Amino acid sequence: MKLKVTQENLNKALGLVARVANTRGTLPILSNVLLKIEGNRLSVAATNLDIAISCQLGAQVQTEGSLTVPARLLQDFVNGLPSGVIELEQDDQRLKITTDSYKSVINGVSAEEFPVMPAIEGGTSWKMSAPLLKKALQQVLMAASSDESRPVLTGVLFQTVDGVLYAAATDSYRLAEKRLTELKQEVKLLIPATALHDVLRIINDHEGDITVVHDDQQVQFRAGDVELVARLIEGNYPDYRKLIPTSFATTAVLARSELVNITKVSSLFARESAGSIVVSVDEPSESIWIHAVASQLGENNATLKVDAKGSGSITLNSRYLIDGLQAMDAKMIQIGFNGKLEAVMLAGSEADDYLHIIMPLKS
Amino acid sequence: MKLKVTQENLNKALGLVARVANTRGTLPILSNVLLKIEGNRLSVAATNLDIAISCQLGAQVQTEGSLTVPARLLQDFVNGLPSGVIELEQDDQRLKITTDSYKSVINGVSAEEFPVMPAIEGGTSWKMSAPLLKKALQQVLMAASSDESRPVLTGVLFQTVDGVLYAAATDSYRLAEKRLTELKQEVKLLIPATALHDVLRIINDHEGDITVVHDDQQVQFRAGDVELVARLIEGNYPDYRKLIPTSFATTAVLARSELVNITKVSSLFARESAGSIVVSVDEPSESIWIHAVASQLGENNATLKVDAKGSGSITLNSRYLIDGLQAMDAKMIQIGFNGKLEAVMLAGSEADDYLHIIMPLKS
Repeated sequence: MKLKVTQENLNKALGLVARVANTRGTLPILSNVLLKIEGNRLSVAATNLDIAISCQLGAQVQTEGSLTVPARLLQDFVNGLPSGVIELEQDDQRLKITTDSYKSVINGVSAEEFPVMPAIEGGTSWKMSAPLLKKALQQVLMAASSDESRPVLTGVLFQTVDGVLYAAATDSYRLAEKRLTELKQEVKLLIPATALHDVLRIINDHEGDITVVHDDQQVQFRAGDVELVARLIEGNYPDYRKLIPTSFATTAVLARSELVNITKVSSLFARESAGSIVVSVDEPSESIWIHAVASQLGENNATLKVDAKGSGSITLNSRYLIDGLQAMDAKMIQIGFNGKLEAVMLAGSEADDYLHIIMPLKS
Repeated sequence: MKLKVTQENLNKALGLVARVANTRGTLPILSNVLLKIEGNRLSVAATNLDIAISCQLGAQVQTEGSLTVPARLLQDFVNGLPSGVIELEQDDQRLKITTDSYKSVINGVSAEEFPVMPAIEGGTSWKMSAPLLKKALQQVLMAASSDESRPVLTGVLFQTVDGVLYAAATDSYRLAEKRLTELKQEVKLLIPATALHDVLRIINDHEGDITVVHDDQQVQFRAGDVELVARLIEGNYPDYRKLIPTSFATTAVLARSELVNITKVSSLFARESAGSIVVSVDEPSESIWIHAVASQLGENNATLKVDAKGSGSITLNSRYLIDGLQAMDAKMIQIGFNGKLEAVMLAGSEADDYLHIIMPLKS
């Protein structure tokens, strides 16, 4: 392997790929990136066995070959180089890197030992806009569980219902659902939230379409020259749509940013009670109240004028309320609830493609 | 105590003062701020017994009084409030805080239990420009030691020599000295670096003069409405000026930013050797070389064209070289050294008010 690439391109590729390489695993080669000539391009790839990311970049190729080298070192090194041309040359299991000012040798490991994820063959494929997928992931990922004892809840469900694709996640304390796009194919994919955090990273600057390809076992996201493959989660996802309330005894319509502010301030007084706050809506006075008590520290009452229908109060985890409100887009939102034991729903006050549900705390 | 203040002023005062309050100490009241009416102003103060910071702000005072309340809670709370008028009212040992939207009660502790640092009486006093002091602290603080076994080295020495005030710090591995200003008074103050980090914080936005007042035990920095008092370190500071080399067998003049870059990149290969790199200057080829070897990872040679006088090489800790270079202001710098066991000096290539000395590693 001998080739020339620009520092800019190699640095960008390593920035997308190298973070997947894991220096603390039991298999040392997983801390390496695979460099491989494919035609007249250089492929840079890394995997943690659950997901694999690869990126192709233009190169001036002199001889073929492949090698793995420590991901972190190569990334930090290339990132520190001045912009311009870099020459890479393989010398058995060593990678020589030369620029005007630098002559470096990085010790590597044979590419034959690098684990490759199985290809997706004959799968289904569809496209969606990268900015829409990015927004959806930002809005639902926080609701996925990090508790491995119920693996299905650590995923995000991509599912078509009546020809519309939705993304949804729940950790059983809260639920977020985003309406994505109309789609002819029937889709039901449960994708690990951890993999989707990496998807979010690789599509971050991508303006065009994302191609999604999947079979029963794996899903691939392709954004330009970057590909990410992840294993799907097996198991039955709960029928979360049954949990979405369709009518409310009490609703309040108000500016989202103002409710965020008073909830944040109130949460300072909720530390002793594990974040517990009481939200009350009062129709006669057209107001919402948030009450928090910290027996040692003191107490806080905050209020806002709202458009209220019905009166009632409910106890919530302030952290979940802040997360939910911050995930929303709408300026004016509606908070709606029924009894003290039923779910609270946050949604835009106008028709919206996002809803967020929070289960109450016992009070 | 009953008064009105603006959220902006109280928030700014708490931002300057509250960080000194320590929630992990053995004396619980040290995690509180003291609020105290002084004339028609509110004084906000905190201390950790080594330093004390206080800030005065304009207030509309109705009744006198004083109280201490948890610093972190009050700061976070006030920071979250909308701008506008806040009413503070003392109710025995509780502080009631009222705004348009909030009614809060924070439980406090009597002001009588709050420790007060002794006043500086009949001390010496002088002034210097805040931006100059800020720059000096940014340039010398990193050279102070954090090893409490030699307390004098944990301080920064402010000392007049022949009518000029210098600030200097050394941890015995490196030394930084900044020429500050001409000064008529004779000054010799050893001030804890930890206190000076707080000084840096309180003078950060201050454009005018700083007043420095000190006696044998304490020093006070006054910037507008903010005061910081710190205990001085006792003991004899080493005569560091003897260590400053006055001539060099080898010198190189080059752009500081370029030397920073190649040192950073080289340091990636110096992790296995505790940061050790070899810096070589070669007069015939007019170049500087940095060589780093990581037996497992590989090796790196980096070079730059320089204006060289004499040839030689020396082994340095790359971290110290980067720190020193980054603390400098000059665009073009000179690196000079003698034998392998003698100190390396970094200074501006033109007359400069800052110098940085690094002791070599054994090679």
